[in-house]
Amino acid sequence: MQDREAVFHLNFRRKPFNGNFAVVAGLETAINFMSNFKFDESDLKYLQGLVTSDGSKLFERAFLDYLGNIKFSCDVDAMIEGTLAFPYEPILRVKGPILQAQLLESALLNIINFQTIIATKASRICAAAKGDEVIEFGLRRAQGIDGALSGTRAAYVGGCHSTSNVLGGKYFGIPVKGTHAHSWIMAFDDEEKAFSAYAEVLPKNCIYLIDTYNTIEGVKKAIKVAREMRLKGHEMLGVRIDSGDLSALSIKVRQLLDAAGFSQAKIMASNELDEFIIRDLKEQGSKVNLWGVGTNLITAKDQPALDGVYKLSAIQNAAGKWQYRLKISEQMAKVTNPGIQQVRRYFDHGKSVYDMIYDIEIGNPNEAEMHDVADPTQKIIPSKNLTYQDLLIPIFRKGKLVYEIPKLHQARDHAIEQQKLFSKEVRRFLHPQPYFVGLERELYDMKVALIDEITKKYK
Amino acid sequence: MQDREAVFHLNFRRKPFNGNFAVVAGLETAINFMSNFKFDESDLKYLQGLVTSDGSKLFERAFLDYLGNIKFSCDVDAMIEGTLAFPYEPILRVKGPILQAQLLESALLNIINFQTIIATKASRICAAAKGDEVIEFGLRRAQGIDGALSGTRAAYVGGCHSTSNVLGGKYFGIPVKGTHAHSWIMAFDDEEKAFSAYAEVLPKNCIYLIDTYNTIEGVKKAIKVAREMRLKGHEMLGVRIDSGDLSALSIKVRQLLDAAGFSQAKIMASNELDEFIIRDLKEQGSKVNLWGVGTNLITAKDQPALDGVYKLSAIQNAAGKWQYRLKISEQMAKVTNPGIQQVRRYFDHGKSVYDMIYDIEIGNPNEAEMHDVADPTQKIIPSKNLTYQDLLIPIFRKGKLVYEIPKLHQARDHAIEQQKLFSKEVRRFLHPQPYFVGLERELYDMKVALIDEITKKYK
Repeated sequence: MQDREAVFHLNFRRKPFNGNFAVVAGLETAINFMSNFKFDESDLKYLQGLVTSDGSKLFERAFLDYLGNIKFSCDVDAMIEGTLAFPYEPILRVKGPILQAQLLESALLNIINFQTIIATKASRICAAAKGDEVIEFGLRRAQGIDGALSGTRAAYVGGCHSTSNVLGGKYFGIPVKGTHAHSWIMAFDDEEKAFSAYAEVLPKNCIYLIDTYNTIEGVKKAIKVAREMRLKGHEMLGVRIDSGDLSALSIKVRQLLDAAGFSQAKIMASNELDEFIIRDLKEQGSKVNLWGVGTNLITAKDQPALDGVYKLSAIQNAAGKWQYRLKISEQMAKVTNPGIQQVRRYFDHGKSVYDMIYDIEIGNPNEAEMHDVADPTQKIIPSKNLTYQDLLIPIFRKGKLVYEIPKLHQARDHAIEQQKLFSKEVRRFLHPQPYFVGLERELYDMKVALIDEITKKYK
Repeated sequence: MQDREAVFHLNFRRKPFNGNFAVVAGLETAINFMSNFKFDESDLKYLQGLVTSDGSKLFERAFLDYLGNIKFSCDVDAMIEGTLAFPYEPILRVKGPILQAQLLESALLNIINFQTIIATKASRICAAAKGDEVIEFGLRRAQGIDGALSGTRAAYVGGCHSTSNVLGGKYFGIPVKGTHAHSWIMAFDDEEKAFSAYAEVLPKNCIYLIDTYNTIEGVKKAIKVAREMRLKGHEMLGVRIDSGDLSALSIKVRQLLDAAGFSQAKIMASNELDEFIIRDLKEQGSKVNLWGVGTNLITAKDQPALDGVYKLSAIQNAAGKWQYRLKISEQMAKVTNPGIQQVRRYFDHGKSVYDMIYDIEIGNPNEAEMHDVADPTQKIIPSKNLTYQDLLIPIFRKGKLVYEIPKLHQARDHAIEQQKLFSKEVRRFLHPQPYFVGLERELYDMKVALIDEITKKYK
């Protein structure tokens, strides 16, 4: 059976962070994985050494030889990075020999679940920051080295402007930004001397961290040093506050900076920030206008994993005919959708209005009504006057890459543009207006028929 | 100043998961990082290319040459993996040229924060499972490839018995375990045929996943296939339930297995498990006795980051005399402890009773009273009759590794033994009995004097 053609889809079920959508990320990383997919000698040697409880070999040699000879040959279609995806919509579809397509599961889920949840979190934080620069600041608290690196990448796709992760800058070309550490101040006998020494070595890159001892005294010293530097032709970029009442402190710091003639200097804040705190600070009239967001962004703290799954939905029988499949489960949310799916997004005067999941073999999306994916009693007939776009595009054909991978900043641009296609009610980060995602009627009917068939058979 | 000797400590401030302690993990990974610490040509080339806003080079060539010539030469002392650490206790101390010691910060925090939070979570989950086997099942939802790999490693240190992450098995020698996927069942026309085919290819490794269509019907089919396999001399290992009411289903499944003569067969459960759900299932009389724990373990979902920090606490002046340092901050929790610290754990008849943080230069732990780290009004004078152990042990001396890295299973054994040293009240995973951690009086007095001095100076 190992070479029987099968179809798997990768999708998620729960709305991330109780918002509406996910910002898809990780495709380039997944492409790199699939392009290099193979079992090397050391893998096979390890697998050959695995034994069962009685000490006999777990795997037959013939199976391991088969693994060693696999050449990736699947068709893959996917939403490109920066696309907005909703629950139950396939983000990625793999069609190919079942053994290969199955073996991709864990890596694809790992890569896309993580980068997508981080890009989504970043998009929310950047929305709260309303155009202010957001620096991804999470390296120290990220989940492992790659949690930091691919997290930095995803945060940039989701809208962050820069990162404090210098290795992420090196690998992905993301702009790197930061300030000095508290230890810089503490290494000197005196805070002002520390600021002066910093200004001397990096005169064009001065953001003074002012809260080591006393924030207000700190900004006064920063101003003093900045005045001296101005005489030498260097402007300070700003100051950073990392503790205390960011709202009250930033207002006082702004007054002092303005009064001293440094109205262009930024006020950067960090310290357990997320989209809700940033929104609150803005509502309180805080003067922060540069945000360093760490832990809550890089771990997606309030939902550290997208609940993405990768499920079989069709397999060819020995005669080459497609057999559609679904899983029932004891929980309705875990019932899967069958078929070979595509997602069509409809637009009314350039604004997204609803999406349809249809089957590329049986569906006729131009004619159909559709049933809400979560509540089938709700139905919509798409208007004939709408424009539309199919979101899954060809990535691999028979294992050959047919997609030109964009530059990372293009993925970021795409994410930002895509969000503009949705109303601000749909983009609201808590209690958003529902966005309709439907199953095309023929696909829905097929699903219902399959559920009936299975329920009768297994009862 | 770059070669001035300085001391940094890595510690955390918040009790992880509202329990009492963290299970320290990641030291071996951190050692590998430090042993290989250097800037290579590609790093320097990248750094050389960084520019300021006016297009001029950010770094001078002389500085980059200095970086290129760094040879790691620090002294490092650390708690070994599996040690239990409490808030404010240094897990790791670095003493060396300030530039080097500072540059290690991000990587050390990244590695130790993550592995420690996962090992801690694993220890809680294993405690709830009360000796049942726990399989780390999180690869699909982990935060990146290394989130999965080093997470698997840390989960094993924390007490998990095995992992479904085969690459983790290959890299770290952790036992690998798992079941077939739902797709295995769905690829066949019939569930029973799928079980038979699985039993045929892996006769000694059969855990049947029974919830694809209907769990109770699923176990009946598994029993039928297992009977046929028993005639051929093969015992099934168990069944797995991945959805629905795990308590009720496991009880029914147990009855059916026992009645059919498979009382040795395990019942495995998975599906969004954590320590609280496992405890509840046990209280409900569930018959699950093998646990597959994924997302909530591998992301430490309820606290995805340890809040570890790495702070300067002492620096030598130009004359080579130690200057003790602390950071004040606007938040009391962010005030740091000065000095060159060691942690002493006291034992009464083999049980840990309290810990003391003392300074290895000024402190006299044998004579002193100590002040609670969080509430200095609380004091204890350690009894003379107690035995004790100092928890930070030498890892590097002048950049040379002086510590013999144990095998990973030894780190896991150590974690399990260490937990036995604490009363079950202290180990309780919610509302535990407080465990006293004190600052030795002379260190405490030094801290208070420094706070006074700084407060006067910066006001």
